[in-house]
Formats: sequence, structure tokens, C-alpha cells
Amino acid sequence: MSADDDVEKQVRELCREARAAGRRLAQANTAAKNAALRAAAAGLRTHGARLLEANARDLSAAGSLSAAFRDRLALSPERIETMARGVEEVLALPDPVGDSIAAWRRPNGLEIRQVRIPIGVIAILYESRPNVTADAAALCLKSGNAAILKGGSEALHTNAAIADLFLAALDGAELPPAAVQLLRTKERAATRALLRQNDLVDVIVPRGGKELIRAIETESTIPVIKHLEGVCQLYVDRAADLAQAGRICVNAKAQRPGVCNAIENLLVHRDIAEEFLPRMVRALEAEGVEVRGCAETRRIVSTVRAASEEDWATEYLDKILSVKVVDSMEDALEFIERYGSGLADAIVTEDYSAARRFLAAVDSAAVFVNASTRFTDGFEFGFGAEIGISTNRLHARGPMGLRELTTYKYLVLGAGQVRE
Amino acid sequence: MSADDDVEKQVRELCREARAAGRRLAQANTAAKNAALRAAAAGLRTHGARLLEANARDLSAAGSLSAAFRDRLALSPERIETMARGVEEVLALPDPVGDSIAAWRRPNGLEIRQVRIPIGVIAILYESRPNVTADAAALCLKSGNAAILKGGSEALHTNAAIADLFLAALDGAELPPAAVQLLRTKERAATRALLRQNDLVDVIVPRGGKELIRAIETESTIPVIKHLEGVCQLYVDRAADLAQAGRICVNAKAQRPGVCNAIENLLVHRDIAEEFLPRMVRALEAEGVEVRGCAETRRIVSTVRAASEEDWATEYLDKILSVKVVDSMEDALEFIERYGSGLADAIVTEDYSAARRFLAAVDSAAVFVNASTRFTDGFEFGFGAEIGISTNRLHARGPMGLRELTTYKYLVLGAGQVRE
Repeated sequence: MSADDDVEKQVRELCREARAAGRRLAQANTAAKNAALRAAAAGLRTHGARLLEANARDLSAAGSLSAAFRDRLALSPERIETMARGVEEVLALPDPVGDSIAAWRRPNGLEIRQVRIPIGVIAILYESRPNVTADAAALCLKSGNAAILKGGSEALHTNAAIADLFLAALDGAELPPAAVQLLRTKERAATRALLRQNDLVDVIVPRGGKELIRAIETESTIPVIKHLEGVCQLYVDRAADLAQAGRICVNAKAQRPGVCNAIENLLVHRDIAEEFLPRMVRALEAEGVEVRGCAETRRIVSTVRAASEEDWATEYLDKILSVKVVDSMEDALEFIERYGSGLADAIVTEDYSAARRFLAAVDSAAVFVNASTRFTDGFEFGFGAEIGISTNRLHARGPMGLRELTTYKYLVLGAGQVRE
Repeated sequence: MSADDDVEKQVRELCREARAAGRRLAQANTAAKNAALRAAAAGLRTHGARLLEANARDLSAAGSLSAAFRDRLALSPERIETMARGVEEVLALPDPVGDSIAAWRRPNGLEIRQVRIPIGVIAILYESRPNVTADAAALCLKSGNAAILKGGSEALHTNAAIADLFLAALDGAELPPAAVQLLRTKERAATRALLRQNDLVDVIVPRGGKELIRAIETESTIPVIKHLEGVCQLYVDRAADLAQAGRICVNAKAQRPGVCNAIENLLVHRDIAEEFLPRMVRALEAEGVEVRGCAETRRIVSTVRAASEEDWATEYLDKILSVKVVDSMEDALEFIERYGSGLADAIVTEDYSAARRFLAAVDSAAVFVNASTRFTDGFEFGFGAEIGISTNRLHARGPMGLRELTTYKYLVLGAGQVRE
């Protein structure tokens, strides 16, 4: 037996344990799950020193890596407190398991109820930030799913210390500790083996860069809930309130440029471009945003540098915004279809029919009228903590909270009915 | 350029057209879609002779194939009428597109609505029955999805004649004909190319045997909504009404044994086995069902032959039933978890707590109390025509009607809100 076969066997055993634990957790009541979450939050606070010690081992091994990388990896008492509060926030959310999606009665008297149940076993693959270990474990636990966590190798000791607190918390609440599993290895073969457990893992949720996601998608035939890029657009219609459009544009680009729901392209109707663009470009530049533009934009504001074809399709995740003057809303819709990534797009307009047309025509997870795309977020939507923002079309689209970590079954109550 | 490259290019072009047509169809109103469906049904009736002619070509080429195969392939005036009625049934169903799943208002005044929209482009791969061409085209059309159909090579002329009627019907209703596409080729390379169009095909729905589904699943990283096997169980509890249990068992096994929601295993509580089994076996044998059993079953009814380990896990799709005497409901639950395929399982009991426990513990798409598993069906659930019965856990589980052919987006109406 080769070393890889050994790894495969270990991973398979771990997945089997997760499956069995998930079956038990699926039937746990909310009080027991909340008790485990309360204990995990308390554990994070009580054992802060143990976490910092484990983190120091990871940090010292990561000596040669970049400062930004080390910053993502590093824990601090404040970061541990934030993790503990995150767990408590999940604790406070309503439990989706058992909720009725629909219920009806058939002419033959059968009573059918469609109820939410946990998905089963969720594998979460992520990179260096160790807080994902606590966040993902808490969300899976609350929604009754077993979690198989595979974090970055550089964070192994930190992640193991966090996971141990969850195991103890589950055990204390008389729930199966195997419901939170951490792949405690740096071997790439373990991840590869995990991606092959189609019968034991129900869904993979990668949290990390595009390369990680693409690699997983290519390698695995287990369903993947992706969070790919966000190339979001703001369209300022000819009937826009231009002051409002200006505020929304600055917010959507500059309030936090490094996130997926920030805009990358600003589309401006020709009829108001002369009036709007000079002010808008000044306002953006005052926020440190570099503006790139089409020929018409540059004719109106000559200091703007030219946007390339590549610019229109790029998720900068930075203070850069590409601006295009369009002849009509149809042109704006065409641009969004061509370059947008289908995450979030907004129109600013006071024209009722234009708003209606935009809402109907834009095929993105979230479509806004007169509001910032930055609201595309589980907290902002009112879902509470999110496991991510899905760019899939199936199962879950957009912000994914606890509800999106469930599936359903039909319960059918009869009185001896048989089919004719 | 090789021949396969050519095929790849053609398939990609067809998918691109489907994507563009799907975008338009997604925004069509119900009246236009219904007009197209009405015209398609009328076309099937009017051009029956043309369909039979095309079918005759397929049948003559299939001369060497089995009688059962030829029967599946063959059209008749009656089968054409059934197809036309099927299209009309879809026409009569409510259009799910635009339905609100949920709507709420946030403290900052944002109004959020989650609305159903078409999935986009659905590829349906199926085997010889040509009625699937009409059924699938109608369901996709009504739900606003573009359909890419790939039927069995033996049915190519028949499928093409049916698809042509839909193209004409779409055109007549001023909807894009490219929204119903048929892969008009027998080349295996075309199917392979189709399975690679991740950016143009949103989901694959195979309709056919396990081999077809497994092959697609292995080859493609596009999401697949599977309809795999149904190993369904009936558990007769010690508190069952035994006469009712007998009727349900005969119905669930013998009313139509060749379908996925028929039962394969009967589990009987030890306390009532002596009373129940002799009658039950007689009743099953009277229906032509071969009974196989565990040692205890054979002790009680000595004429029963032994069930093997393999029997418990087999979807017979035939008049064969395996019977096991269990010591407790927990044993029944364990059996269902181990051998069941998670499609449909039923308990017969008059014990309230036993019913509750069974409903909670069985993790199948449909769980029945005192009713036949045969009701696991889109029509019987009240959904109307179904594209299949999903054995996936994600997106759609169990009977898939029009609603399951949709996804959603969030519409967010604001008054200038920006994020703090």
C-alpha cells in the first residue's frame, strides 16, 4: 500500500465518521446545538492563550512569507474575541431545520409538508484566515450539518486548536464531536482524496481565490458552491437623481473596494454624461479612486486615462473604476450581460419603467434600484452570518446564510391511501 | 482542424444560440409561452403523418434491435395524441417565473424580494422514447428555459420531426426558435462536446439508465440533476393496522413494479410477524410477486426462498420483494439508512410517537405514514407534469415540476441607501 493509499483510507474514514455524526446532528434540537455553540464561544475566550501559542508556531514557520500573508494568519486577543462574538451571533440566529417551506392537502386526503433538513456533510476548503475555522464550524453546527474543514497548511496548528474547542463543546452538549472534522495534514493528497468522496460529502464550499475554486471544480464531481468573482456595474440612467447617483457610486466603489460586491464599471447615459461625469470623476478622485474611461468619457473629462477591453471585464478589488458612456439603457443591459459576472448590478433612476425594465432584464443574483451594490451581503439582507456569497445559479444564489445550508424532504401523512 | 474540432465548434455555436434565446425566453410573458405550447400541441396533431413517417425511418433502421426497444421507439396515432395532451397539460400549469419566494423590508428601508427566474439553459440527455422530446421541450418552454435536447441516435428522425414542430410554434408566437435545440447528430463527439460547455449550459438532466447517468456524471463538471435508483422500503410497525399494511404493501410493490417509487424491501416488526407474514406472502403471491426473505421470515413462511445480502440493496424494477423481520423500529431505520437509496420510505403504524420518530429519522426525499410510496410523483404531489424525480440532495429533491426548473434572484428597491 502506497503512502497515498494510506492517506485516502484515513480521509475516507474521517468522512465516514462525519457522515454518521451528521446523521445524529441532523436530529439534534436547537437547544443542544446552541449549548454547543455557547461552549465553543466560551472556549475561545477561556483558551485564548492556547490559541495564541498554536498561532505563534504557525507564524514562526511562516517567517519567509509576505507581511500581508502573515497578517491574515495572525491571531490577536481582539481577533479571538471577534471569533467568539461571531459564534454567538450564529447562536442567536433562528434554526432553519424543521421549518416548513410549504404544506398542502391533496384531494385524496394526503397531507404533504416540505420541510427543511440539513444538507448532510459539507466540506469547506479555505486559505490562511483561521477565523474561517470558527465561522464555518458554527454555521454548519447550527444548521445541523457535519463540517469537514481543510484550511491552509500554514494555519494548521491554529486551526487545530480552534477545532479542538468545537470538539470539546460538541462533546459537552452530548452531540457527536465528529460532526466538526479538521483535515489535520499538510499533504496535498488528503485534499485530493477528500474531493473524491462523492458518496460521503454532499457539497464543497471553497473559500479563497479563483485559482483554488477552479482547481476544485476541475478535480471534483461533488457539487461545488462557488464564490467566484464579482464584476458589478452601476448604471446611471438619464432620469437619475444625479446627487444620489454620485453618493451611491462613491459608496459602491470606495467604501470597501476589496470585496466582491463593490462595482468595477460605471455606465452613464449619454444625455446626462456632460453634467454628471466631471463632478463624479472629481468625487471619485477625492476618494483616491483611479478612473479609466471610454473615448466619450475622456472627451468630457480629458484627464481620465483610457480603459482597455480588459478593464471592462476585470475585478480590480482595488480603487480603480472604469467608466463608459452608453447611448441607451439597452446598451447598458448589453454591457452588463457581456462583462458582468452576474453577482450584483444597480440602476439609479427616477423613471418607473426604466427601473422595471432593469429589474426584469438583469440576470444577476441581486439587482438594485437606487441603492448601493454593497448591500449584497448576508448581514445586510437580514440573514445574519454567511458562509459566502454564491455565484452558482443552482441551489443557492447570492448571500448564503443558514437557510442556504439546508435542503428539504417531503413528509406525507395518510390514512391508508394507495395509488389507483 | 479535425472532425472532432468541427463538431465541438458546431455544438458550441448551438449552445451560444440557446443561451441568447434563453435570455429572451426568460422575459417572455406567460401568454406568449402558452401560445407557443398551444401551437406545438396543434402541430403534433396536424402533422401526425409526418411524425409517423419520420418514425418509420428510425424503425426500419432499428430492425435488428429487440422488440422491447422497438416498442419504446415506436410512435402511433395514440402515442402522438398522448404527447399533444402532455403539452396541453403543461400549458395549463401555472407559470412559476416571477413568483415571489419571499419579500421583506430592512430597517434601513430597503425592500428585498426573492423572485423565481428560469435556470437558463438546460441540457436533457435521454434514450429511445421520443415522447421525452415533447415533454422536456414543453416543460422548459413553460418555465422560460432554453432546452438542448440530445435523444437516442435511433430516434433521431422522430425527435427532429417533433423538435421542428416546437421551432415553428416558437416562431409563430414570436419567441426565439433557438430556445428549443436538438442535437441532430449521431456522433458521440457531439455529446462529449455538450458536456464541456460549462459557461453555456447551466444544468444537465439525464433521463435514462444508471449507466447513462454515471457516464455523464463522471465526464462533466456541469451540475447534473440525477434520477438514480429507488430502493424504497415499507416498514410495518408493531402498532400497524395490519389490513391497511397489507393493502399498502401490495400497492407499493405490485401496482406498477417497474418504477422507482415501488418498494423493494418490506420490513416487519417481530411482534406482529407471525400474524402478518403468512397472509401478506399469500396476498403478494396472488399478485404474482416473488417473495424472498430473511431466516425469520422463512421460519414463519417456509415456502419463501432466502434473500441474499445483494437482494436487500437491489432495485428489481420487477415483481420481486425482499422481506425482513426486525426487532425494533431502530433496526428498521438502520436497514433503511444502510440499504435504501433515499428516495421514498413508508411506515404503517397507529402509534403517534413511532410515526413521528420515523418521519424525523428517515432521510429520504419523501417519507410516508400510512400511505403508499407510489405517491412519490409530480402529478400525485400536485405539481403537474414532471421532468423527473431527483435523487440529488441539492437544488431539487424528489419530484421535479416546473418550480424545480427555476432559480431565483433578489430585487432590491431603495431610495438612495448607501452602506455605512
